[in-house]
Amino acid sequence: MKELEERILKDGVVKQGDILKVDNFLNHQLDPALFYQMGLEWKRLYEGEEITKILTAATSGIAIAAVAALPFGVPVVFAKKAKSANISDDVYTVEVHSFTHGNEATLLVSKQYLGPQDRILILDDFLANGAALEGLISLAEKAGARIIGAGVAIEKAYQGGGDRIRAKGIRVEALARIASMDEKDGIVFTD
Amino acid sequence: MKELEERILKDGVVKQGDILKVDNFLNHQLDPALFYQMGLEWKRLYEGEEITKILTAATSGIAIAAVAALPFGVPVVFAKKAKSANISDDVYTVEVHSFTHGNEATLLVSKQYLGPQDRILILDDFLANGAALEGLISLAEKAGARIIGAGVAIEKAYQGGGDRIRAKGIRVEALARIASMDEKDGIVFTD
Repeated sequence: MKELEERILKDGVVKQGDILKVDNFLNHQLDPALFYQMGLEWKRLYEGEEITKILTAATSGIAIAAVAALPFGVPVVFAKKAKSANISDDVYTVEVHSFTHGNEATLLVSKQYLGPQDRILILDDFLANGAALEGLISLAEKAGARIIGAGVAIEKAYQGGGDRIRAKGIRVEALARIASMDEKDGIVFTD
Repeated sequence: MKELEERILKDGVVKQGDILKVDNFLNHQLDPALFYQMGLEWKRLYEGEEITKILTAATSGIAIAAVAALPFGVPVVFAKKAKSANISDDVYTVEVHSFTHGNEATLLVSKQYLGPQDRILILDDFLANGAALEGLISLAEKAGARIIGAGVAIEKAYQGGGDRIRAKGIRVEALARIASMDEKDGIVFTD
């Protein structure tokens, strides 16, 4: 998606340790008008598919999913991060390793809001090693929901997480796919 | 706002300990179409005011603020929750007491995204004792930003936090104001 790629080139900052900072419009300051355009693009890409619910994860996926859901006209459910203790029977849980924070986090969704009747589009901000997206896929599978596909804003294609998930037969639509990036040479998108 | 009040009566659950659970459409499952209507209503209420940025707090304010910002056509900044350690010079911080979690939390906003040039509308999901909203007001004041006003989805008017903030001269527009609620008699809105 040209508009998103241009925004990444304009406002994204590549930092040491394979970090792409997009605080300016995606992770701290937010550009809802851009998220709405992203929603229209995912809607176009998934045209013809029946989608009943959008699933994302706290915190970073919430804004994109909530705005991008508007063209779909469906509710959003976000998986919450929880301490492993104090988890009740009425939730689905999955353990996810966070490479950013270097620890394990538990994602949970209430059984009330995810079930076999749901046809799910998963949306998230980043796809790199794939751990977060695989966590959401696992939650949807535990709930017996049908996964129609996923949409991510930015895929670090060179990390291979997206390829691994696509190889399982799950459709993943990334709106900006980064082929390579470093502090000196900047960001190169895939064709 | 009639549509929000009706939704609270339909899907809200009053629980022991003065808790209103609105997980069905506001805090876990989200209804973006409703948030958009709320945005239109705040836009109407603040008609004629110049607003350049919307400020909210993680996690619960993000979805409402991101969607409700669309009619305003302005960016959103959300204050992040942080551990008190490990805070750099380039952020404004404030300590906020969470009555829900019974602990202190630090809210922070990067100085890059909040400053004297900003005319701020603060949006949040709940206003009860007022601690969260006062935290956001304090962040905006530290940044030298002009606070145009605040909008909250649900105000527990009987807790007095909103009245205390209005008494300071800050405009607060609540779209549903609860006069009283309990498990037996349900929810009564103010006139």
